[in-house]
Amino acid sequence: MKNEIVEDDLITRIQAIVDNVDVEGAVSLCSDYHYVDILEALDEMDTDPVRIFMKMLPYEDVAGLLENSWDDFLIMVTPAFTNAELINIFTYMAKADVADLLGFLSTVRRKEILRYMKSADSNILNMILSFDAESCGGIMTTEFIALKENLTVRQALLKLKDIAPKTEIIDYLLVTDNRHRLQGVIDLRDLLVAEDDTLLKDLFEDFPFYVHAEDDQEEASNMITKYDLNILPVVSKSMAVLGVITSEDIIAVIDQEYTEDILAMSGVNAEEEFDSEFFESFKNRFPWLVVNLFTAFLAASVVGLFSATIDTVVALSAAMPIVTGMGGNSGNQTLSIVLTSIARGDMALDKDFKLIMKEIGLALINGALLGAGAGIVLAVKYANPFLGVIMFSAMILNFIVAGVTGFLIPLLLDKMKMDPAVASSIFLTTFTDTCGFFIFLGLATIFLPKLI
Amino acid sequence: MKNEIVEDDLITRIQAIVDNVDVEGAVSLCSDYHYVDILEALDEMDTDPVRIFMKMLPYEDVAGLLENSWDDFLIMVTPAFTNAELINIFTYMAKADVADLLGFLSTVRRKEILRYMKSADSNILNMILSFDAESCGGIMTTEFIALKENLTVRQALLKLKDIAPKTEIIDYLLVTDNRHRLQGVIDLRDLLVAEDDTLLKDLFEDFPFYVHAEDDQEEASNMITKYDLNILPVVSKSMAVLGVITSEDIIAVIDQEYTEDILAMSGVNAEEEFDSEFFESFKNRFPWLVVNLFTAFLAASVVGLFSATIDTVVALSAAMPIVTGMGGNSGNQTLSIVLTSIARGDMALDKDFKLIMKEIGLALINGALLGAGAGIVLAVKYANPFLGVIMFSAMILNFIVAGVTGFLIPLLLDKMKMDPAVASSIFLTTFTDTCGFFIFLGLATIFLPKLI
Repeated sequence: MKNEIVEDDLITRIQAIVDNVDVEGAVSLCSDYHYVDILEALDEMDTDPVRIFMKMLPYEDVAGLLENSWDDFLIMVTPAFTNAELINIFTYMAKADVADLLGFLSTVRRKEILRYMKSADSNILNMILSFDAESCGGIMTTEFIALKENLTVRQALLKLKDIAPKTEIIDYLLVTDNRHRLQGVIDLRDLLVAEDDTLLKDLFEDFPFYVHAEDDQEEASNMITKYDLNILPVVSKSMAVLGVITSEDIIAVIDQEYTEDILAMSGVNAEEEFDSEFFESFKNRFPWLVVNLFTAFLAASVVGLFSATIDTVVALSAAMPIVTGMGGNSGNQTLSIVLTSIARGDMALDKDFKLIMKEIGLALINGALLGAGAGIVLAVKYANPFLGVIMFSAMILNFIVAGVTGFLIPLLLDKMKMDPAVASSIFLTTFTDTCGFFIFLGLATIFLPKLI
Repeated sequence: MKNEIVEDDLITRIQAIVDNVDVEGAVSLCSDYHYVDILEALDEMDTDPVRIFMKMLPYEDVAGLLENSWDDFLIMVTPAFTNAELINIFTYMAKADVADLLGFLSTVRRKEILRYMKSADSNILNMILSFDAESCGGIMTTEFIALKENLTVRQALLKLKDIAPKTEIIDYLLVTDNRHRLQGVIDLRDLLVAEDDTLLKDLFEDFPFYVHAEDDQEEASNMITKYDLNILPVVSKSMAVLGVITSEDIIAVIDQEYTEDILAMSGVNAEEEFDSEFFESFKNRFPWLVVNLFTAFLAASVVGLFSATIDTVVALSAAMPIVTGMGGNSGNQTLSIVLTSIARGDMALDKDFKLIMKEIGLALINGALLGAGAGIVLAVKYANPFLGVIMFSAMILNFIVAGVTGFLIPLLLDKMKMDPAVASSIFLTTFTDTCGFFIFLGLATIFLPKLI
């Protein structure tokens, strides 16, 4: 693969360009490497050389780098440019990327820049900025092709030749009426082979898929994934086309949402990456561990309730983590299936509540089989059949607790419009630990005379 | 949203079509609804009516349904069609989808069908079938446009008009030399605005990205995601273009890989869905729970080692789950970050081993702060400062165990070319439970005289 870049070489080369104020070298570097690779090298360097390097580049290359970069980089680099320079750079960037960047500037600076831009551009930017960053309006592309339905194929092709270079999507053309309302979609293939005098209104296909600009990005992601769409129009309340979301836009959304889910399950903030700063990682992970300390004390205090029982039969202290550990893991199985189904938009509390019976059934059979195994081992080891029976019963009951909570926690959070993944694993183990200890030690206390 | 379909209505409508042998109704149903929605309704119905319905449809609609369907559906439906019928249906389907379907037929039937097909088609299919289903060759699209570099723009546009309707991708054209070797890529926008007599070789851009057909699909997914590509050519060892992977193909891959990761972490097989059959779910989850039973006994036997200590100071039995539970959750934080980074292709053992020092540092500070909190509570509650000191020390040590194993388990599995997510959470908690009990009870045993 040609793209296996030796990052260290690139850093050395950029440093030399900066040291020698080698403007030509900077320009040729941008044609030799992909912007993403250059950005990864810049990310390892100090602020000053990075800013000097960026200032040496033509606006088009600055735009290319900014379009591919991430939050920290934007915050680091933008102060190096004047408002006038930024406005020039923006002419080479997609509006959605410009809007992202404007979000990182101070309110004063953002307003100033928007005031000095062409009003056609600033109107679009103000519109994008009015939507939530994770809504369909916040991620849509505004560089699409929309043609009026009363054009002929010849007129459309001429128009296309003119506007195609400025757009991001070309293989699907939106067709609108005179009031910009979406009427349908034409595949460029069909336009290329159609007769010159055909009207677009006789050519377009009905396209029943669209989202509203205020809808959450997950809605667009689920629709594009389910129906395998290339583009999804984004419309206003009055059905006017505002932009489109493409399958490429959705890759970024899916990537982000899934990573968030996996991290959130374990109580990690989605902003943390494997190479985050030490203190950032600490700030991110510590709060959930504090929550966890309280839940751990809850479980411990349940054990404390039964200290007289444990004092009498010390074998219980060795056996009890089996009940809680197994419960936690079996609950996590349920949890992860429910979470991935919710993320795909396949599952909801109202329509799938009956599936809780399946989880209870699985808990009964898994709990009975594994509880029987564990019970027999304990009964033999401590020569006491009652200890085995208690383990067997506790395991079944705690598996039911695990199945029900693993099923309900994410669905209830989702129903309450909260992220179903956030720390769900921590909440689940709180339940399985607390209930597991209570059930096992409670049963042992009731049947204590049989255990001595 | 127009696509909020009432599934039950659709089922009733299909059933009526089948009962009345209403061929026209079947055809108009396919133009009224998206194939995906029809498939979801068919999925709820019995085999016989589904097969009857499918046999009533024109080949083109059968092809549309098969292209969008899933494994179970293919297995259910294909026996209803003769080989000749299938060959006709295949002419409306993308080769990659035909290859998927052939994979579900018996070897005899597959060979027979391939023998009766046009050899141009069966050659492509045999090639796709020769690659692993999860390799780049297994997921690539063979319906792409490749043009020879010595064509003029006029010749290219004429050719395009002719072949575009049969291809899946049109906005990017691959340019090859006379031996089908990839030379570059032309954006259709550039072709549309170029002079008629320009040669393609003067027009194409260098395109440094490609994958080999044998590469794993994750390689394509990482490259497309990282460099935000629209298409990625798939080449043979001699650099001949065999197909392309599009950003839409990759959405399916990402969806699949991430879901697999979340499920695998908790010891659930990726084939399970929230509405899988009861016995299928059982078969899927039980084996990992059996593994877990052994690891739970391992932890229990560590506790058993120290039963004399617990017998002396019963408070230890209440305090010990705090050490293990906290360790498990802090290890899971590390684990989930490392797993998502590996999945994105950002992290590998060799190049990022030094980051283990950060995890150890985080373990020290988190363990010290939370251990101090827990230690003070215990010291006050049981009026014994030594119990507090033991909790404090055990917490720090077990957090280090958690950080190191949460870091190493997925990276070592990845290094050994195994799926880093498989049951990693179960392995992690085995370590944190076993070590947590050993450290805490071991320290308590050493300092037992101080605790009484």
